[in-house]
Amino acid sequence: MSNRDSIEVVRASKKLQATFFNLRSNKAFELFVVCIIVFSAVSIGVRTYELPPLFIDVVGVLDVLITLIFLFEIIVRFVGEPDKRRFFHSAWNVFDSLIVIVSLIPIEDSELALIGRLVRIFRVLRMVSIIPELRMLLNSLVKALPQLGYVALMMFIIFYIYAAVGSTFFAEINPELWGDIAVSLLTLFRVMTFEDWTDVMYETMKVYPFSWVFYLTFIFFTAFAFLNMIIGIVVNVLEEDV
Amino acid sequence: MSNRDSIEVVRASKKLQATFFNLRSNKAFELFVVCIIVFSAVSIGVRTYELPPLFIDVVGVLDVLITLIFLFEIIVRFVGEPDKRRFFHSAWNVFDSLIVIVSLIPIEDSELALIGRLVRIFRVLRMVSIIPELRMLLNSLVKALPQLGYVALMMFIIFYIYAAVGSTFFAEINPELWGDIAVSLLTLFRVMTFEDWTDVMYETMKVYPFSWVFYLTFIFFTAFAFLNMIIGIVVNVLEEDV
Amino acid sequence: MSNRDSIEVVRASKKLQATFFNLRSNKAFELFVVCIIVFSAVSIGVRTYELPPLFIDVVGVLDVLITLIFLFEIIVRFVGEPDKRRFFHSAWNVFDSLIVIVSLIPIEDSELALIGRLVRIFRVLRMVSIIPELRMLLNSLVKALPQLGYVALMMFIIFYIYAAVGSTFFAEINPELWGDIAVSLLTLFRVMTFEDWTDVMYETMKVYPFSWVFYLTFIFFTAFAFLNMIIGIVVNVLEEDV
Amino acid sequence: MSNRDSIEVVRASKKLQATFFNLRSNKAFELFVVCIIVFSAVSIGVRTYELPPLFIDVVGVLDVLITLIFLFEIIVRFVGEPDKRRFFHSAWNVFDSLIVIVSLIPIEDSELALIGRLVRIFRVLRMVSIIPELRMLLNSLVKALPQLGYVALMMFIIFYIYAAVGSTFFAEINPELWGDIAVSLLTLFRVMTFEDWTDVMYETMKVYPFSWVFYLTFIFFTAFAFLNMIIGIVVNVLEEDV
Repeated sequence: MSNRDSIEVVRASKKLQATFFNLRSNKAFELFVVCIIVFSAVSIGVRTYELPPLFIDVVGVLDVLITLIFLFEIIVRFVGEPDKRRFFHSAWNVFDSLIVIVSLIPIEDSELALIGRLVRIFRVLRMVSIIPELRMLLNSLVKALPQLGYVALMMFIIFYIYAAVGSTFFAEINPELWGDIAVSLLTLFRVMTFEDWTDVMYETMKVYPFSWVFYLTFIFFTAFAFLNMIIGIVVNVLEEDV
Repeated sequence: MSNRDSIEVVRASKKLQATFFNLRSNKAFELFVVCIIVFSAVSIGVRTYELPPLFIDVVGVLDVLITLIFLFEIIVRFVGEPDKRRFFHSAWNVFDSLIVIVSLIPIEDSELALIGRLVRIFRVLRMVSIIPELRMLLNSLVKALPQLGYVALMMFIIFYIYAAVGSTFFAEINPELWGDIAVSLLTLFRVMTFEDWTDVMYETMKVYPFSWVFYLTFIFFTAFAFLNMIIGIVVNVLEEDV
Repeated sequence: MSNRDSIEVVRASKKLQATFFNLRSNKAFELFVVCIIVFSAVSIGVRTYELPPLFIDVVGVLDVLITLIFLFEIIVRFVGEPDKRRFFHSAWNVFDSLIVIVSLIPIEDSELALIGRLVRIFRVLRMVSIIPELRMLLNSLVKALPQLGYVALMMFIIFYIYAAVGSTFFAEINPELWGDIAVSLLTLFRVMTFEDWTDVMYETMKVYPFSWVFYLTFIFFTAFAFLNMIIGIVVNVLEEDV
Repeated sequence: MSNRDSIEVVRASKKLQATFFNLRSNKAFELFVVCIIVFSAVSIGVRTYELPPLFIDVVGVLDVLITLIFLFEIIVRFVGEPDKRRFFHSAWNVFDSLIVIVSLIPIEDSELALIGRLVRIFRVLRMVSIIPELRMLLNSLVKALPQLGYVALMMFIIFYIYAAVGSTFFAEINPELWGDIAVSLLTLFRVMTFEDWTDVMYETMKVYPFSWVFYLTFIFFTAFAFLNMIIGIVVNVLEEDV
């Protein structure tokens, strides 16, 4: 290949990159992709109903079409990216590529078919990667997480201590609720959501009449920590803004 | 009709308009209409009890009277309006007129009788169109809706993905709760309100012991998105005011 | 009675008033009354247990003693008040006097004995009238009520319309829940607290498959109005303070 | 002992104190202790499962090791403290010492074995005493408590009056829920958390058809007081910060 040829190639690829960059930034193209995602979401919903075989075949064909359009869109975004290295720095691009690649693998096995269905469901999440407002919203949610760190740790310590006490005393009363520490943690989460918590309490009160202290202190501690968490966030957000 | 006659008519109609405009703006007239609405609401409530036939007849006659008063009131407001075109620009005027017109249609059929009863019930909503403070309150509620848009979309995406996963895995365990995507969405809403959510979970945990991950992550995501929504509104309202 | 005598009486009564005013403002006296109220509250609690007859007699005697102390305290406060007319302007003074007077009436009848017990229970509320901080707290609670007025009215309109619709359509499905408008209002309040609301919904969905729309819109409207109410209060309080 | 010897001892002890003070302030040492606490927490959790005998023996040996490390750490902190008197002024140091001392007592008796297990569980709380951020968080929680004082008292008065009324009227209907004042307080707490509160209400409504007034007013009062409490805290926190 002569020098001139390679220059030609570079020039052509640059032109292609610019074209695809424009295409990627095009609002109509974005809207088209959103429509495809909505359509893919609807097709997932439709599959959960009993359908005539012909309909299933049509949905199957459309599914392949959706995958191809997604593949095309990823390629457009990749080629349109001026700096190829930065492309995979964005977690969303990696997520999108993975979803498309896994969708491309032909799955025959019934075991893997389930995974195939899951991947198809997660394609709905591409909505977040496409719509900038949703991406910003998620970023702000994720940014709020670290400040919850220590309250969450505190809450986990409270849960862990109560679960250990619970499975020490109540394991023999009801092994399904207090059999081991993992089950006890789940039971305590249930108590925190007030879901039939009195049934749990009345059962243990028959053996330990004072076990209401266990439940009431737990509810007070978690409610207090939870309240503190919310107030902390509200105050933080207000201070940032004002 | 001579020119002078038509001038007379215009003058008379203007006078009528001015009279009705004053009547419409009259506090006593407003109070009278509010009383009629309250009375109409009470008559709706009374009908849900077992009543002697005579009483039902009396209520029926009163109902016609209420409809006529409402008709009169709408005419007063329409004639009293200086700019007739603007009258139907207000959604409340359209709503009021519709309610009165449908009330006027004589309904004999038992099928339509139900619609007649519904229209009579919606007459209570006229309270909002009459009392300015309630109208303002509703306006401020409606104005707060758009800023919820993206969080609501995010929440719907979370719901949809979980419903799709739920109906994929749990449909055979309990078709009444997870049979198709619509039923799954309803079940997930139930889980979000913590209403007997552990019953739903324990059932699926017998088949998939790790399905608690499904419920707990769902609860965390929706609670987090919901919290974010509330905090967002509080901060917005505070910023507007300060 | 000579003029000098009457002057003597006035002077003596003034002195008594001053003495009682000092007594009333005395911290030790306040603490003593608080202790008596606490003791009276304990004696109410103790009565709910099965007790030996001797103990009941002792509690009965103590009860008479408490009533006498309360009578004495009211007299002290009345005589200590410089302006007798203002005494009954305070709702708390009227409440305290009423409680003491009703306590004094000897009740033999078993029907009225229940009222006697109720009056004794309401003596605990005297805690609020005695401790200034609690009185202030209650005042600030009561002051916050009017601003809730229109939201409460809006909420009642929502409740009433849904209750009317509910008792129109669902009365035949379950008369215990939707029989008349009063019962329907109670059922809707239950739905708002998420207490077994799905049981109520599943029952009506068997007849009207789309009745979930009724419940979900109701939950959204009330949750939205409730949220608005809370945010309104927070903003009001913050604006007052800043 | 000669003067020079005692000087030597003082010098040596000072050196030891300085060394231990440095060790105590060492981040690596802190991390090591945190790891030991996490490991001790895990060993508590593991014990709630059915284990092979060998494993139990290993856990038992490790438990002794953990106790010894904790003993060593307490000694380091005590010796490293420049002012020995101040050591026991910190509630956390007292708590840590107590936990270690009770852990050291060899327990054979099965009755006391339970206490031994509880002490081992409370060792997890040492996490709070070690990590400064958690200690600060807990301090700020504890500091927020006093301002809740009067609202809590008000809430208790509401609870007490309703419990007294409840056990007066409903004790014969369901002694398990309303038998005495303590049980009634627990039932009212259950009603406040909306946990099957309608079951409780429907039961008493069969005897006293108007008893819904009792439950609804109770829910309104407690919800209102609770709301007021939260808003009070939010406003206080915001004012402190701004």
